[in-house]
Amino acid sequence: MAKSNTDKIFSNFKEHSVAEFFKKNKQMLGFSGKVRSLTTIVHEYVTNSIDACEEAGTLPEIEVKIHEITKNERYKVSVKDNGPGIPKKHLGKALGQMLAGTKFHRYAQQRGQQGIGAAGCTMYAQITTGKPVYVVSEYADKKLTCNVAVDIKTNSPTITDEVEEDNPQGAHGLYVEGEFGEVNYERSAQSPYEYIKRIALANPHVTISLLEPTGELTTYPRSSEIVPKKPKEVLPHPLGLGVSDIVDLAHRETDKYNMSSFLQERFQRVSSAKVDELAQVMSGKTEGIIYLDFKKKPSELSWEEAEGLIKAFSMVKWIAPASDCIHPIGAEQIQTSLAHILAPEFIAVTERPPKIYKGGVPFLVEAAIAWGGQAGRRLSNNQVTSDIIRYANAAPLLFDISGCAITQAAKDVDWKRYKLKNFEEEAITVFVNLASVHIPYTSAGKQAISQEDEVYQEIKNAIMEAARRLQLHLAGINKERDRAQRRNAVIKYVPQLSHDLSELAGKNTKPEELAKKLTLLIETKYMTHILGDESGEEGLEENGKEAEDADDEKEE
Amino acid sequence: MAKSNTDKIFSNFKEHSVAEFFKKNKQMLGFSGKVRSLTTIVHEYVTNSIDACEEAGTLPEIEVKIHEITKNERYKVSVKDNGPGIPKKHLGKALGQMLAGTKFHRYAQQRGQQGIGAAGCTMYAQITTGKPVYVVSEYADKKLTCNVAVDIKTNSPTITDEVEEDNPQGAHGLYVEGEFGEVNYERSAQSPYEYIKRIALANPHVTISLLEPTGELTTYPRSSEIVPKKPKEVLPHPLGLGVSDIVDLAHRETDKYNMSSFLQERFQRVSSAKVDELAQVMSGKTEGIIYLDFKKKPSELSWEEAEGLIKAFSMVKWIAPASDCIHPIGAEQIQTSLAHILAPEFIAVTERPPKIYKGGVPFLVEAAIAWGGQAGRRLSNNQVTSDIIRYANAAPLLFDISGCAITQAAKDVDWKRYKLKNFEEEAITVFVNLASVHIPYTSAGKQAISQEDEVYQEIKNAIMEAARRLQLHLAGINKERDRAQRRNAVIKYVPQLSHDLSELAGKNTKPEELAKKLTLLIETKYMTHILGDESGEEGLEENGKEAEDADDEKEE
Repeated sequence: MAKSNTDKIFSNFKEHSVAEFFKKNKQMLGFSGKVRSLTTIVHEYVTNSIDACEEAGTLPEIEVKIHEITKNERYKVSVKDNGPGIPKKHLGKALGQMLAGTKFHRYAQQRGQQGIGAAGCTMYAQITTGKPVYVVSEYADKKLTCNVAVDIKTNSPTITDEVEEDNPQGAHGLYVEGEFGEVNYERSAQSPYEYIKRIALANPHVTISLLEPTGELTTYPRSSEIVPKKPKEVLPHPLGLGVSDIVDLAHRETDKYNMSSFLQERFQRVSSAKVDELAQVMSGKTEGIIYLDFKKKPSELSWEEAEGLIKAFSMVKWIAPASDCIHPIGAEQIQTSLAHILAPEFIAVTERPPKIYKGGVPFLVEAAIAWGGQAGRRLSNNQVTSDIIRYANAAPLLFDISGCAITQAAKDVDWKRYKLKNFEEEAITVFVNLASVHIPYTSAGKQAISQEDEVYQEIKNAIMEAARRLQLHLAGINKERDRAQRRNAVIKYVPQLSHDLSELAGKNTKPEELAKKLTLLIETKYMTHILGDESGEEGLEENGKEAEDADDEKEE
Repeated sequence: MAKSNTDKIFSNFKEHSVAEFFKKNKQMLGFSGKVRSLTTIVHEYVTNSIDACEEAGTLPEIEVKIHEITKNERYKVSVKDNGPGIPKKHLGKALGQMLAGTKFHRYAQQRGQQGIGAAGCTMYAQITTGKPVYVVSEYADKKLTCNVAVDIKTNSPTITDEVEEDNPQGAHGLYVEGEFGEVNYERSAQSPYEYIKRIALANPHVTISLLEPTGELTTYPRSSEIVPKKPKEVLPHPLGLGVSDIVDLAHRETDKYNMSSFLQERFQRVSSAKVDELAQVMSGKTEGIIYLDFKKKPSELSWEEAEGLIKAFSMVKWIAPASDCIHPIGAEQIQTSLAHILAPEFIAVTERPPKIYKGGVPFLVEAAIAWGGQAGRRLSNNQVTSDIIRYANAAPLLFDISGCAITQAAKDVDWKRYKLKNFEEEAITVFVNLASVHIPYTSAGKQAISQEDEVYQEIKNAIMEAARRLQLHLAGINKERDRAQRRNAVIKYVPQLSHDLSELAGKNTKPEELAKKLTLLIETKYMTHILGDESGEEGLEENGKEAEDADDEKEE
């Protein structure tokens, strides 16, 4: 290969910023299609606002306004919250630099986790309208107003028109306003309207309102006054670590630590007794495990020693990772929300304990199935098919439906096992929320969950548990129906029989009284013993209430 | 909000490198699951090798070796090519820095387009085994050997053990070898084995071999000696630009240009006559369009002027963007490949002209449907369902099946319109290749195509065109079958009839001769006129060959 040719090929060699990457691949951030792009903007700002409020222990109050500038093309979006605001030092980077923020490196359950979203919106405003976003940040005793843009070539913030004022009242919160092109507002199933409704359904402590371009204002006031527990940052559990994680953490350590204190202070569930146990395993006498000096400086830990440590971790017993950092939406709230939007005849909700994936990342799956009423999705031909409502850390997932582990799990359930038709043919709505300190999204757009084995399996199990409850309920309905039919078959002879008996028995017996007695006899003794129902309830309502209770009993 | 509280919240504010981001979200690069991770590694190295060879005008020869270190856990992977090699200056960045390379910023059809893949593999080697990748690069008169790692905190390469030698024979090529943990080798449908087979099927000019951990060597020698045209870099077309693209390009321009020469030299299809036309539109006399001085320096172009320019672009006529930068696999090659792997009874292939998306990005869709033989996918219960073979720029897509626009388009086709059952119930294989200078992938893992309207629609149209051909073919088969049945119904009377006629006619007529004549009469006149078939062919083969030809005629 001649030198000149190679040189020519590589004359094009360049480096790029992450902002350039996401500008060229904005679909990876959720900016594809006009409606989706607008929902993405609302999603990023709203989840940031809720996260910020929860971080500060404030009940979130969020106002979203969408104003039309050019129909089907350009809209102004603003989001105002009562969170802690963002200090001057961080404001530019928080809104004008990708991969900067408070969340990415932390091991806590939050809606955002990448440090890309808000800066991605700023970029989208710039590349579609050439305008920066306008921000008002109130925090401590300051009120800061400015415009923020992303310098895309360098992925760094550009701040202009900065005004700093005193804020003697101590008001706090963030207001972000941007003008966006290549967006469109409509009230479809994947619109900001639906998004905000779903936020309200899963976040009862949030008051949120939407002012639509039509001027219509929809407010969802909070139904719970309980400030959610602050997202707790947890130390990593030894079983959740790879060799490279340990090496990275150890080498970052300052020299005042030795390996023993490093392990006890930087990880959860490591006591000094546990270190002694590990030291025993790593004393050089265990087959296939290297010797490790626990007095060694962490910064000198070798890859081989870290590998040995990982092996040693797997040979001692551990208390499971703490899972109190995981906050579910809660069965009651899910029940209330589904009842509210779908008015179904029956809702099966599961409550399951937290699980662990990849050895140490705690997560929790909540699943529910709504049946009857408005459950399922109406097709244009008037047929009804199944529907899926997906959440990750209580933030709605509206896009990338088919590529999501939740959808896959719902489809993979063997619904026939629960006496149901194929998933697509049932008028049911499956609801799933995945809560975790790290949601394994398939892409930076955060709209679908990657099919990690343990997560996928737990989602499937949770849906199956709900399906089992639904099955029991439907079996109850069918039994009730059978029972009612048989009862009716017997009871229709009562008038004739009571008349005949009355005649046989003579003057003292009125047919009406006989009929009453006969009916009672049939309803109690006959129905109970002959038809094998031991519960002896008298009502034969078909609204499923009873059957539901019965199911619960049977399951316990 | 008290200052201390806000400060505390923001004490965690940090910046991160893109390497840190993808380390934490490695599933976005395709590193999720042991088998997939191994296929991702092979995919990244092999596509880079083919791209490099094509860039240098060399017929690619690629050797992939996978060696087992620990079963179901750790493997050594090496890929060797005969491309141009990578010069010392760029070697570290090409393999040890994300978002660096020759491809990202270019407007040319290549398999890679992000500058992430190879550095992602280096990172995966590091975080799973702690080892850098080993590289031998032969280029010009040099042979360079070294180890490359990614400094994840800074996203920059670390080069060690560098040895530079003379390379007097002028050999050229790249050899990359890495040791990877959390991977597994097997021969499943999403394995490196399948991947390499699919590379061979769509790239007839490539010789590629795989040495499996078992020691088995599979070689796919090239079937075409034609060096593919070098991927052509094209200038952007005015209709494919957003306002921010124009502003960016204009502001990057040195001061020797004015707007007129900037437009003519930096974009395709802009002649000086076209600039005059644009100047006419932007003379300040067009309603709603700003005045622009075409003698102005590009670096002084304002956002408003650029907006006006975009409007002006849409008001003049343009020659469509050049599409000779798009290289299809070719109908013949697709036919050969599908015949080879599926031995189907019928293959419908479409050849369609290039289209444009987002105003100026040229792309081309090739689609085929295989029917009968081994087409479709066998399920464990012996039922057969449909299958989809997806390619993007002739690189196989094996993962993220359900989240891909190709899958969605195939499912959304109304198959009943083509007299077929539901998509899932047909034993057909749908083949689609999307060729473009920019494939809109859903994520950095490059395994699924985003549902961009124009791309999705063209994929669907291409599949529908193939489905129509299949329908005609099947209609032909059915007609043949009808015809054969009716013929048989008549012909079975021939022996009796010829015998009876012979007796009536007397001694000179032999029944055998009469039977022959009668049969001929039925086969020609009767079948043609009475059954309404004008073609008069005599054969009644049911293998579909004839019917296929007939379909083609009917379609033309």
